[in-house]
Amino acid sequence: MKNTFYYDLESAKIGSSVELSHALDNLKYNDDGLIPAIAQQKDTGEVLMMAWMNRASIEETLKTGQVCYWSRSRQTYWRKGESSGHVQKLVEMRIDCDGDTLLCLVNQKGPACHTERSNCFYHSVDGDQVKVIAEPN
Amino acid sequence: MKNTFYYDLESAKIGSSVELSHALDNLKYNDDGLIPAIAQQKDTGEVLMMAWMNRASIEETLKTGQVCYWSRSRQTYWRKGESSGHVQKLVEMRIDCDGDTLLCLVNQKGPACHTERSNCFYHSVDGDQVKVIAEPN
Repeated sequence: MKNTFYYDLESAKIGSSVELSHALDNLKYNDDGLIPAIAQQKDTGEVLMMAWMNRASIEETLKTGQVCYWSRSRQTYWRKGESSGHVQKLVEMRIDCDGDTLLCLVNQKGPACHTERSNCFYHSVDGDQVKVIAEPN
Repeated sequence: MKNTFYYDLESAKIGSSVELSHALDNLKYNDDGLIPAIAQQKDTGEVLMMAWMNRASIEETLKTGQVCYWSRSRQTYWRKGESSGHVQKLVEMRIDCDGDTLLCLVNQKGPACHTERSNCFYHSVDGDQVKVIAEPN
């Protein structure tokens, strides 16, 4: 049977609500049980990074208020800032129209990128070249 | 051999450049040849949506200046706004630190979401509930 959970919400009025556990049950995780999560700095709107979460890391993020991803390369929880101190404090988590992407509005402490840049998107396409547009802080 | 293309750029100075074709060759496409692309409204910073691109749709987007995704459900090119008129004009395309995510800064004409909302992220987690926070325009 086709999952129509998010489809059914398309016509819902502002302020309508559903149970969080049902909403998380009905997210479209990929074959590895993961869903992409965009981190955006709440006040400035800066898109900081994109990483992946599984159901448990979503729940941990919501419970602790500190963003926790799933590291595909290390195959373990990635509690952002655990070693660097560059934590992301969750302000609000949003789910998109079809339940296959998360948007985390955060307060980022220090640089978000492992390269010590404020965000990860520092390669900019410029004609037939790609230019580096930021250096580490 | 491990692909170190983006790793090697981590220490590059601002203004350094590489050839676009090499940069696109070295993106980390998934097993289906796809890479996630975030669309952000350039002037307001609003995160509009996240969808997927393949190498050809990236090149079309850059060539035409109109954002073209790859539709996973329809398995074909998804020229955003082709039927609705709600096109995304590309202002700038950025690539993240490890070459596995794109950020498209765009000028969105009309609502970005197929539900006629300005963006796709209209479900907000609120305690043990998820609330609808936007209605169609």
